[in-house]
Amino acid sequence: MLEKVRKENPIVHCITNHVVSNFQANGLLALGASPIMGEAPEEAAELAALADAVSLNIGTLNSQSLSSMLLAGKTANALGTPVVLDPVGAGATEFRKNAVNKILEEVNVSVIRCNAGELAAIAGADWQVKGVDAGEGDADIGKLARTAAKRLGLIVAVSGATDHVTDGERLAEIRYGHEMMASITGTGCLLSSVVAAFLAVQPENHFEATAAAMRYYAIAGELASRQAELPGAFQSAFLDHLAAIGEGELDKFMHEKEGALKR
Amino acid sequence: MLEKVRKENPIVHCITNHVVSNFQANGLLALGASPIMGEAPEEAAELAALADAVSLNIGTLNSQSLSSMLLAGKTANALGTPVVLDPVGAGATEFRKNAVNKILEEVNVSVIRCNAGELAAIAGADWQVKGVDAGEGDADIGKLARTAAKRLGLIVAVSGATDHVTDGERLAEIRYGHEMMASITGTGCLLSSVVAAFLAVQPENHFEATAAAMRYYAIAGELASRQAELPGAFQSAFLDHLAAIGEGELDKFMHEKEGALKR
Amino acid sequence: MLEKVRKENPIVHCITNHVVSNFQANGLLALGASPIMGEAPEEAAELAALADAVSLNIGTLNSQSLSSMLLAGKTANALGTPVVLDPVGAGATEFRKNAVNKILEEVNVSVIRCNAGELAAIAGADWQVKGVDAGEGDADIGKLARTAAKRLGLIVAVSGATDHVTDGERLAEIRYGHEMMASITGTGCLLSSVVAAFLAVQPENHFEATAAAMRYYAIAGELASRQAELPGAFQSAFLDHLAAIGEGELDKFMHEKEGALKR
Repeated sequence: MLEKVRKENPIVHCITNHVVSNFQANGLLALGASPIMGEAPEEAAELAALADAVSLNIGTLNSQSLSSMLLAGKTANALGTPVVLDPVGAGATEFRKNAVNKILEEVNVSVIRCNAGELAAIAGADWQVKGVDAGEGDADIGKLARTAAKRLGLIVAVSGATDHVTDGERLAEIRYGHEMMASITGTGCLLSSVVAAFLAVQPENHFEATAAAMRYYAIAGELASRQAELPGAFQSAFLDHLAAIGEGELDKFMHEKEGALKR
Repeated sequence: MLEKVRKENPIVHCITNHVVSNFQANGLLALGASPIMGEAPEEAAELAALADAVSLNIGTLNSQSLSSMLLAGKTANALGTPVVLDPVGAGATEFRKNAVNKILEEVNVSVIRCNAGELAAIAGADWQVKGVDAGEGDADIGKLARTAAKRLGLIVAVSGATDHVTDGERLAEIRYGHEMMASITGTGCLLSSVVAAFLAVQPENHFEATAAAMRYYAIAGELASRQAELPGAFQSAFLDHLAAIGEGELDKFMHEKEGALKR
Repeated sequence: MLEKVRKENPIVHCITNHVVSNFQANGLLALGASPIMGEAPEEAAELAALADAVSLNIGTLNSQSLSSMLLAGKTANALGTPVVLDPVGAGATEFRKNAVNKILEEVNVSVIRCNAGELAAIAGADWQVKGVDAGEGDADIGKLARTAAKRLGLIVAVSGATDHVTDGERLAEIRYGHEMMASITGTGCLLSSVVAAFLAVQPENHFEATAAAMRYYAIAGELASRQAELPGAFQSAFLDHLAAIGEGELDKFMHEKEGALKR
């Protein structure tokens, strides 16, 4: 599926936060996608109409960008374009909770890509997020993600030590990646738009597309972590690996990893 | 002219998009210029009055930043300070088209720095941008740029496999650079403000200043591409080359290149 | 104190400019702090209430972010949370002057972290900033910082060839660091939020915390400059050093430096 993204260069319209926008655009370019980053309400619908996928991120949300996200999301829906929502810090403030609810009410979101704490906020779970994030509660994450996916009628993709992807029925667990990925800002945000790019080239199977995106991304991160153990070097190495690896590297990596697990 | 920028450290007031603002500020510092990045309408005129050149970029334009651009541009005009316009995605939405028209109506722009697709939008040409961008239409780009420059009474600088700079009469073609420059976001945006810095130190010859800026920039990119073949490493190497090369390296590079072309 | 930051992972709520937000968040992560970067007025108070320190930066200030800064600052005050103000370009425009005055009137700021020119603007001094910045006026900077600290009832930390930290009585001078730190954008902005992180773990002694933060930061910069002499590489190396060095490296560095000075 990676080769398909590289070949089709899907346009991903991102309305995202200013902390990660450079990294997100560069990561999409490294993947082979074409980012559009405009966000004014005056043009949000028109930009979304040009895109093959829309990626919404509430990291530095304000009332204006929320309007733009709703406009872009509705336009995408009207055209059958997939929409990914990254509910950054979803439970942290009323403003974020209300924004996420409003987006989920007014826009038909294809995939929510989040971390365990954000999943808990969306699912209304009363969780000790720190424990969950440390990997203690993998079974719980899968269960909660599945419940949320079923209730909301969409795919939920949860990043963590183990990634969980579910459409409410199927559940994929991805055990690749490296904690270095959490040592720099924006890896989650970029991943959400990478998922969007994969959805764009695989409209008939969003579950598979999401899992493939998460797998590609985690492997790029794990390979980069072998090369760079500090955050400045890692940020650069991660972009390099997003650009350099192909289907062949992915298969080889997974093959070796499975072998290693079995031995 | 590069040495003059290094010596005079012109202040460039940038009103630009948040995707590239860090890269743009760092690139200007690497060149030896002094970036000012403020953008509130309350201070846009005052900041422009402090500057030796003004660089306007509509990448993540909104109604407020458009007001600031008009204020900064008019102040620059009143003081005889050069203004560069980067019409990012000019043809993509009505909002952008109108913004570009409004800026060109109300501000005396010195240089438009754009790519072939944006040139087509500004010139009203009905173009297959992909083909043009791939270098098939060099003659057409030069012609269209010249027509637009003459009609608008300014310099047009078009980036691509070959760069074209024209004041409506003269036409310079720059065949340096490398496709890696298109593999990261913001290289066009930064270039526009690099042009602004060169204009600041060469007020009596904007055509030469623009061509010199484009040449310096393309050579830095080509040299960086010899060192870094992947986007994360390239971003860093490109900033390093912008800082490291002097007039001597430029001359040496062009000399070798001409020799290579002749042989 | 560095180890305490690493252990406690204080949450730093940053309302900052879009030019440096990525670098600032990554620098805080490298230090071991947890950045929150939200800035809408609708949530500024709630985010500040979650934080162990608040870091305000007026680099790309607008009327909305100013409102957010006031809300976050007042919330921090009500909860006894330290507040750092970075008055970027304080004297450049009326808008900035008024914003700084308003923040200082309405918010109980713990530390102002600035450069010599900004100190002059805040203190109302009529200075040739360039001369001062070049290190000619160290005695004057210390004196002016002390006067401003006493008058405003807070700590003033001034970055430069020599850093000055004062609470109006005590004065610490830090002679580490490297001019490469001024070759990239955002090193001052990041430093302000690093100070905030140190304040969070040392509430009973803000003067010592500020000096410790400045020392750690200057040493990381000086060590990075030994590894990277150009800005692209330096930006990455600096983040790496912020993450890699511990109390041991700091002690060793200072010990060697003192020895070198004495010999």
